[in-house]
Amino acid sequence: MSSNKIDLVLFGARGDLSRRKLFPALFQLDKADLLSANTRIAAVARQELESAEFVEQMGETLKTNLGDDWCDTVWSRFKKRIEYIRIEFSKKEQFNALKDWSDESRTLIFYMATPPSMFGIICQHLDEANCIDAKSRIVLEKPIGHDLESSKEVNDTVGKFFPESGIYRIDHYLGKETVQNLLALRFANRIIHTQWDNSSIDHIQITAAETVGIEGRWTYYDGVGQLRDMVQNHLLQLLSLVAMEPPNKVEADEIRAEKVKLLKAMTPINKNNVFDHAVRGQYSAGSISDDPVVGYMEEEGSAENSSNNETFVALKVFVDNWRWAGVPFYLRTGKRMKEKVTQIVITYKDNPHAIFSDDDSGANNRLVIILQQNEGIQLEMLSKKQCMKERSSLEKRTLNLDFLDPNDDGRIVDAYERLLLEVLNGDQWLFVSRDEVEASWQWCDDLLQAWSDNEADVKYYSAGSWGPGKSESLIENDGRSWYLA
Amino acid sequence: MSSNKIDLVLFGARGDLSRRKLFPALFQLDKADLLSANTRIAAVARQELESAEFVEQMGETLKTNLGDDWCDTVWSRFKKRIEYIRIEFSKKEQFNALKDWSDESRTLIFYMATPPSMFGIICQHLDEANCIDAKSRIVLEKPIGHDLESSKEVNDTVGKFFPESGIYRIDHYLGKETVQNLLALRFANRIIHTQWDNSSIDHIQITAAETVGIEGRWTYYDGVGQLRDMVQNHLLQLLSLVAMEPPNKVEADEIRAEKVKLLKAMTPINKNNVFDHAVRGQYSAGSISDDPVVGYMEEEGSAENSSNNETFVALKVFVDNWRWAGVPFYLRTGKRMKEKVTQIVITYKDNPHAIFSDDDSGANNRLVIILQQNEGIQLEMLSKKQCMKERSSLEKRTLNLDFLDPNDDGRIVDAYERLLLEVLNGDQWLFVSRDEVEASWQWCDDLLQAWSDNEADVKYYSAGSWGPGKSESLIENDGRSWYLA
Repeated sequence: MSSNKIDLVLFGARGDLSRRKLFPALFQLDKADLLSANTRIAAVARQELESAEFVEQMGETLKTNLGDDWCDTVWSRFKKRIEYIRIEFSKKEQFNALKDWSDESRTLIFYMATPPSMFGIICQHLDEANCIDAKSRIVLEKPIGHDLESSKEVNDTVGKFFPESGIYRIDHYLGKETVQNLLALRFANRIIHTQWDNSSIDHIQITAAETVGIEGRWTYYDGVGQLRDMVQNHLLQLLSLVAMEPPNKVEADEIRAEKVKLLKAMTPINKNNVFDHAVRGQYSAGSISDDPVVGYMEEEGSAENSSNNETFVALKVFVDNWRWAGVPFYLRTGKRMKEKVTQIVITYKDNPHAIFSDDDSGANNRLVIILQQNEGIQLEMLSKKQCMKERSSLEKRTLNLDFLDPNDDGRIVDAYERLLLEVLNGDQWLFVSRDEVEASWQWCDDLLQAWSDNEADVKYYSAGSWGPGKSESLIENDGRSWYLA
Repeated sequence: MSSNKIDLVLFGARGDLSRRKLFPALFQLDKADLLSANTRIAAVARQELESAEFVEQMGETLKTNLGDDWCDTVWSRFKKRIEYIRIEFSKKEQFNALKDWSDESRTLIFYMATPPSMFGIICQHLDEANCIDAKSRIVLEKPIGHDLESSKEVNDTVGKFFPESGIYRIDHYLGKETVQNLLALRFANRIIHTQWDNSSIDHIQITAAETVGIEGRWTYYDGVGQLRDMVQNHLLQLLSLVAMEPPNKVEADEIRAEKVKLLKAMTPINKNNVFDHAVRGQYSAGSISDDPVVGYMEEEGSAENSSNNETFVALKVFVDNWRWAGVPFYLRTGKRMKEKVTQIVITYKDNPHAIFSDDDSGANNRLVIILQQNEGIQLEMLSKKQCMKERSSLEKRTLNLDFLDPNDDGRIVDAYERLLLEVLNGDQWLFVSRDEVEASWQWCDDLLQAWSDNEADVKYYSAGSWGPGKSESLIENDGRSWYLA
């Protein structure tokens, strides 16, 4: 159970994130007896609404979203925690209602489920209404800026009101059980741990493919692009967890320091090497699962002129340190791709010598960490084919390191449950430090600058494909190919 | 399909081995289209019996033994291959019947499913009846002697009539799919291969426990004991396959040479170190699966005086080479033990540093090769416990490297099917060379001599236990313990 004397304030309580993720996660925590009995939730949004009405609506939403996990008994205690407080964020006097609701003897957690442009004004008005004290914590959703400079501004703004130790920057990938299990795999298993370097590993791939397109956000997304939207945060977080040096303890400071070190060790991509190391793509019309979909420039709200904004990125990244020298990390992410899939694939080097049939000599050991669709970790090994006709031919066997114990109730907890619990516990190990944000923006800014300097045009790919042909040659020129388990 | 123009002569065709293993295996090979259409089988035994009668009896036996694998269609073609030939092995003129049956243009394989004491006289009479030519092969069942000297005699005797390349010495453990898969695991998987030495592996255990007792063979067994009955052949074969250097090819000569090298590198146990490295045991009365069983000296046919014969052996063995220096191999085998189980357990070293909860730090990675009861290979790893209440506690997950592909028909082939097929193919890779037999007898003779010099008495253990207490302290004194998956 989370520590006593904590209340939660949700800004943007009627938004999509609150409805789909935050309230369901809090409900699940309550159901699992992980919410302290006296923890209260202030649901803050600007709409005029009675608290009872908000609670009733949220009840309906939860019932629908939770399906079989819904429980009347839990709801009857959970709903008593919630109070709806109407605040227009721009109106400082309205924050007094929150002050009235709050209790100085308790810790307040402010969850910013709002656009980042609101962070500053909300913090300022919270401060002016005396809602913030030394115990307070704030939770920030992405994006933290759109480049290094603007991210510093966001962090400076929030930093005026909260110390770094009170700031919890969400990257929901870090809340996934599989990502945490990656740490257990790496650091608790000697047979993995001792072979986690350039002497054993051939290369590492990270694929984060989406089938969705712009989802009505064309104007916003066109100013952002896939590098900022997915690489700067999620992919570089995964990369840093996969590649960081072993921390001495599983503690926030240690882990975050190792991640920063790793991010700073990434070789910059500049105008001299950008064409060999980075591919930008943009989807044109195509089809996904046999349904035709329009191209990026035909999306609702798209500009009339052409746009050079990328909806796909493929990268070949090196890490300049002792462990990873010479090992390429291939990253790709895009919208409107063939399948929704997020996987980290660690391919071990080939055996130096093959004594079984030649056909199988190319089948390397692989460790595959699957984040979507179904979370799990697989180890690919070679085993003797049980076949009398062939004396000793091999076949690939996939070892599933399943999460679901047959004795469990079969539910993989959602990332937001874990993350909210850690915020309540005051543990930052699954949150992103300012140093990390800045190190990854620094690296992305270099790449954006290189693209800009070279006037790198997007390569087109059909919606429903795996990206532009150049993303294939990026890896195939090295004698490797993209791999999905 | 095995090569054409081969006929098989089974000496001891009415014996237990023939009925339970050899004929069923040949039937299965036929069913799988792995027997050449014209391959014939001469079933040789001393009883007066019409061929049709023998075939009919064998048909009944097979129908019972094969259960669901029985097939009328296969039987109708299989039975046509069989001819019963009555030969009393001591009567040389009776071998002429075999000569009449044989065809010089074809290769004859003589399978000696007889006591080894018959090998010499059978070979001599085969020779005198001109049944042996340069193409002929002979298959020998254990035991090949009861010490180095007598094994040389057996091998010399057979060697007078067959070249070493024509002699196939059976150790049926080598026919097991799992044992062959061990080679695939070791040599086709880099993550296994690169950690197969004293820098990664803490120790290796081999347990071969039987629940049966002497099975009416007291007088025979009392002159033999468990070291000769199980260690000299099966356990040392397993040890040599687990520990041998990688062969350059999966070929008989290469593999057998590596096994000999390994057997010769085993540190001898002599009278100075025997008490620290070897335990002899003998079962007293006890119970197995709640059924009371008598002690060794109460078995049917046992002598009236006490016997110092061992029915249990536990050993701590070292291998004096670069790969295994300092890594103990713990071996144990016994009769009337708690469970019927044969397992090889490779325990990796602990991680040098534990960053997760202390409780779990002792859970090493293990690779377990299960030969009995159910064949299979398991890799034991640590994974994050999926538990919201604990941040990052670990639990052991067992990865099953199952043999049974869901697409297979679900049958693990019997060792004798594989071994017979390899004899038909003329491939000795799963058979034991003379050099191996002699190297392992040499090592066992040293140990027997040390026991004799020190007048080492057997330690008693209750039937249904895991052996005498001293076998526990043998390993526990090193801070380890026996482990079964």
